[in-house]
Amino acid sequence: MRIAMIGLGRMGANIVRRLMKAGHEAVVFDRNTEAVGALVKEGAVGAAGLDDLKGKLEKPAIFWVMLPAGEPTEDTIATLAELAGPGDIIIDGGNTFYKDDIRRSKMLAEKGIHYVDVGTSGGVWGLERGYCMMIGGPDDIVRHLDPIFDTLAPGLGTIERTPKREAYDVRAEKGYIHAGPAGAGHFVKMIHNGIEYGLMQAYAEGFDILKSKSSEKLPEDQRFDLNLTDIAEVWRRGSVISSWLLDLTASALAGSPQLSNFSGRVADSGEGRWTVEAAMEEAVPANVLTTALFSRYRSRVEHTFADQVLSAMRFGFGGHVEIPQ
Amino acid sequence: MRIAMIGLGRMGANIVRRLMKAGHEAVVFDRNTEAVGALVKEGAVGAAGLDDLKGKLEKPAIFWVMLPAGEPTEDTIATLAELAGPGDIIIDGGNTFYKDDIRRSKMLAEKGIHYVDVGTSGGVWGLERGYCMMIGGPDDIVRHLDPIFDTLAPGLGTIERTPKREAYDVRAEKGYIHAGPAGAGHFVKMIHNGIEYGLMQAYAEGFDILKSKSSEKLPEDQRFDLNLTDIAEVWRRGSVISSWLLDLTASALAGSPQLSNFSGRVADSGEGRWTVEAAMEEAVPANVLTTALFSRYRSRVEHTFADQVLSAMRFGFGGHVEIPQ
Amino acid sequence: MRIAMIGLGRMGANIVRRLMKAGHEAVVFDRNTEAVGALVKEGAVGAAGLDDLKGKLEKPAIFWVMLPAGEPTEDTIATLAELAGPGDIIIDGGNTFYKDDIRRSKMLAEKGIHYVDVGTSGGVWGLERGYCMMIGGPDDIVRHLDPIFDTLAPGLGTIERTPKREAYDVRAEKGYIHAGPAGAGHFVKMIHNGIEYGLMQAYAEGFDILKSKSSEKLPEDQRFDLNLTDIAEVWRRGSVISSWLLDLTASALAGSPQLSNFSGRVADSGEGRWTVEAAMEEAVPANVLTTALFSRYRSRVEHTFADQVLSAMRFGFGGHVEIPQ
Amino acid sequence: MRIAMIGLGRMGANIVRRLMKAGHEAVVFDRNTEAVGALVKEGAVGAAGLDDLKGKLEKPAIFWVMLPAGEPTEDTIATLAELAGPGDIIIDGGNTFYKDDIRRSKMLAEKGIHYVDVGTSGGVWGLERGYCMMIGGPDDIVRHLDPIFDTLAPGLGTIERTPKREAYDVRAEKGYIHAGPAGAGHFVKMIHNGIEYGLMQAYAEGFDILKSKSSEKLPEDQRFDLNLTDIAEVWRRGSVISSWLLDLTASALAGSPQLSNFSGRVADSGEGRWTVEAAMEEAVPANVLTTALFSRYRSRVEHTFADQVLSAMRFGFGGHVEIPQ
Repeated sequence: MRIAMIGLGRMGANIVRRLMKAGHEAVVFDRNTEAVGALVKEGAVGAAGLDDLKGKLEKPAIFWVMLPAGEPTEDTIATLAELAGPGDIIIDGGNTFYKDDIRRSKMLAEKGIHYVDVGTSGGVWGLERGYCMMIGGPDDIVRHLDPIFDTLAPGLGTIERTPKREAYDVRAEKGYIHAGPAGAGHFVKMIHNGIEYGLMQAYAEGFDILKSKSSEKLPEDQRFDLNLTDIAEVWRRGSVISSWLLDLTASALAGSPQLSNFSGRVADSGEGRWTVEAAMEEAVPANVLTTALFSRYRSRVEHTFADQVLSAMRFGFGGHVEIPQ
Repeated sequence: MRIAMIGLGRMGANIVRRLMKAGHEAVVFDRNTEAVGALVKEGAVGAAGLDDLKGKLEKPAIFWVMLPAGEPTEDTIATLAELAGPGDIIIDGGNTFYKDDIRRSKMLAEKGIHYVDVGTSGGVWGLERGYCMMIGGPDDIVRHLDPIFDTLAPGLGTIERTPKREAYDVRAEKGYIHAGPAGAGHFVKMIHNGIEYGLMQAYAEGFDILKSKSSEKLPEDQRFDLNLTDIAEVWRRGSVISSWLLDLTASALAGSPQLSNFSGRVADSGEGRWTVEAAMEEAVPANVLTTALFSRYRSRVEHTFADQVLSAMRFGFGGHVEIPQ
Repeated sequence: MRIAMIGLGRMGANIVRRLMKAGHEAVVFDRNTEAVGALVKEGAVGAAGLDDLKGKLEKPAIFWVMLPAGEPTEDTIATLAELAGPGDIIIDGGNTFYKDDIRRSKMLAEKGIHYVDVGTSGGVWGLERGYCMMIGGPDDIVRHLDPIFDTLAPGLGTIERTPKREAYDVRAEKGYIHAGPAGAGHFVKMIHNGIEYGLMQAYAEGFDILKSKSSEKLPEDQRFDLNLTDIAEVWRRGSVISSWLLDLTASALAGSPQLSNFSGRVADSGEGRWTVEAAMEEAVPANVLTTALFSRYRSRVEHTFADQVLSAMRFGFGGHVEIPQ
Repeated sequence: MRIAMIGLGRMGANIVRRLMKAGHEAVVFDRNTEAVGALVKEGAVGAAGLDDLKGKLEKPAIFWVMLPAGEPTEDTIATLAELAGPGDIIIDGGNTFYKDDIRRSKMLAEKGIHYVDVGTSGGVWGLERGYCMMIGGPDDIVRHLDPIFDTLAPGLGTIERTPKREAYDVRAEKGYIHAGPAGAGHFVKMIHNGIEYGLMQAYAEGFDILKSKSSEKLPEDQRFDLNLTDIAEVWRRGSVISSWLLDLTASALAGSPQLSNFSGRVADSGEGRWTVEAAMEEAVPANVLTTALFSRYRSRVEHTFADQVLSAMRFGFGGHVEIPQ
């Protein structure tokens, strides 16, 4: 198929590459003309703007927007809504909040334009391993785009098959699902990221306890000087907690056992927060996912005002002095 | 009554003062002879050591040990166990772990010595306001010591009486209870402190959110520049969250609206941790009390290794760079 | 002053009573005509509708809306926006989300109508004790309404004054503050309720650990049979954790030591959730406030699907059977 | 090598089978004579008691104890301590608390007996996949036992190798590590299980939010009816959160999309609790691991007393009625 890609960052560019490798055609645009040039050298058709881009597509046109969530995506889709016509398809492959998808899909439906949201996991590894995709949109349109998704997904590969899957949609085993109507794709991806935060924090806390077991705060006969590099490695092998995140941790610890290259200030994106909001809307307790998010907030400040309030109270009732020296 | 006080720190010395003011007699000892001298000037009988102390008491002797929990208390009680005889009473008024009380009371019972544990709240304010006491030990011995406890407690005072209390022990309304056998006093005091951690953290987080509402991280039209000093004050007056801890917070914020005197590194003592252990032994979920404790741990380090592990994973799957500059 | 009260539930009716007792005049309306009749008997002027209500007010008219947050309040204010004219004042005394205040105040300002939001704490006790109020709106309008707020607030009363308050707004000591522009009142009240959740949960967990210390799950020699009624009472007296919420708990436990009248399904209102959202917007870790909220969600379901997922995994890796019998 | 296995439950029996398949010899004992008989049929030497067992071993004897932690293991090792002589080796392969290992190893060392603790992960899958082992004990003894561990471990297999591992102990890549002196093996295994709780809870919460997205509590236009079976499957394929625990979840959901076979009452073993204790000893915040543990406690009761305390307070300040009907 011929598809337009708007946004040629690492994700967008690699998606184009994976598509072209499988024989699809890509028309590409990015405000950064170097990014366009690079892909043109690899076989893509370059575009000078969204107008130009549209002219280089067949009918119905397929626009894949791969931009930062929020304004950049919003503005681009607003422009495309003007350019596109009935039957055309706009795909948002970024990290959009699913309620924005629902809103947009309604707005575009009034013009006969189809909207598809694709939550994508796989990060920098997607080009090689394939992308795990969670898709929302009308059934017939998602079916129409199947050649694209089938190409981008990892495929069955060598991963052991889950028993009793015969009755289910084979696309899930290939690495993509049609999760539901507009917004459903990004909703599932959002929860995916929420879980990711929780998993990461669980490993992180565990390794912290292992590392601190050698701390001089402990009585000497209660210390162990543990080799975290080997521990991460051994857990990859036959243990209940083996995972891809653990593979990455083992790799990081093999390269730098103290992880001294990392500052410990940890960013968060919208998905973690939106997951907590979804939990609250549904009245589902989500302690682990939330505390994992808060831990990142805490990592980015030296001290909280909350801590100072505690010290002030302690001074008030007990005369405890916790004053900077 | 005549009572021996061992340990003349702020708590021990003030307990002696409150007792003497009510006509009780005190024999006092501390390794710090100045502390002894100060109280002798105020009317106490000084002692040069535990032996000397014992000689200055009537039969049955009453020893109140008011020392830091752990070794100092343990060693002193071991020595007293040698000096004391059948019928004598040893009181531990410190912050001892209740299982140590149970062990000691058994050991002392074999020698006919009575053991009473007294958990004391009231901090630096106790001399003036009276001490809230939670007492463990044999019923007859606790009754015997009633004049002491009655003096130390705040008494009915002007606090509004709880309806329907007629059927209950009046001692609770005076500010002390006989909670149960040895260890029960410190157990109740331990949970008191566990709750204290939770309450403090609840206020602290709330004030942090109020303060951060003026943060430049927020879009300008979403900021409020709130006066925390006035907010703390107004909540003291008719609101659901009025409390003594809030009084202290209001006072601290009136003196220093930014609390800039406080570093935000917050200590914790054994009780918070023991409360969590008790919860785990009973399989009671205690999320608030535990997270309040963990928040203090976190306040005392700049970054955790856990945070670095998160950064390492993020670099691994997404190429996110969180490296010190 | 003459003021209109729309909504005569427990809060609205009692506010009217407290105002009239101090000589203010009230014009009252509620869809429930009995509620109107009751207050008319006590001296209020009754109104048959919002139109009628408006006709019975002086210029500038003051409308106090005391309705459930959300639609009822929103619709009423929309109607008032049509009826009211330049210079009139609309007060929302309910539990409105502060962003709605900001939106409404802008909308009303275009018509020259002033908007004031009043967060009110004090619950069923306000009539007698006075209401703690947190107010948002334009400075001159809030000043104009001062006689109303001054009447409703508890006043200085017998509560011990906070030291070093001389430099601050005396209104806080009387029990009300002008927190900032529109929305600031409800924002502060919202955080108040968020803190309330945390405080309540801290006490609740503590009492649970005390109660479960007599559980048969524990070895017999590790049990204490504690008197929770007396413990709650003694903590009111000189302890660090004394508070109004503890007073209420002591009262409940004196009436029913097992609290067997209460099902343990605990509701939550919007403020707890909005507090968490505010924390997330500001990137402030709020573990205690959030976990307190989640605990309420959990209280309302028998089992979570999350628990079933855990059981399914445990069966998967360990053959552990957690199947209903 | 010839090795004695004491305890022929699923773990012990399968370890024997895996050893014999590789040519090792096993002398086996269990109080359940049928279990002994079954393995004798498969080639093991049966023993009628510990005495008999000892007689059937070469010098130095190797005893592998594979019994429930606590009394059964403790008693057996005490008996073995009497039977064994200098140079003999006792292995505890169960889930013993690491401080018990330290105590025992000292006690046994006085008799010249070597003690090795082996934390084992792999559950019911170990026979086929191999066991992931974390080992504590003296270096020369662990080296001596290498043929045993090498057989039991999964081996390099087909798992992708971690880059830059050349400098590290190859045993970790085969699936076992010598973690440190006595206790270190069980300590690392304990943290492994602590992490496991956190990971499981993260997935569980995520799936709960997905499932509850179809809840009738939500406005109809905010619901999605998501296929959890397909979602679990797709996440196995190229996503950041792929793991063995997710494989198990996908399998469970393929078999029963509602997981209706599972009651949602989730057990916990000692390791989760000990992990929290270790975190507290080290003052490491471990919010995720702890909240995951508490969630299991909560799953096993219908209502908590804490919830009733909340209701009682709410009734007290707001007249909110939360009473069973």
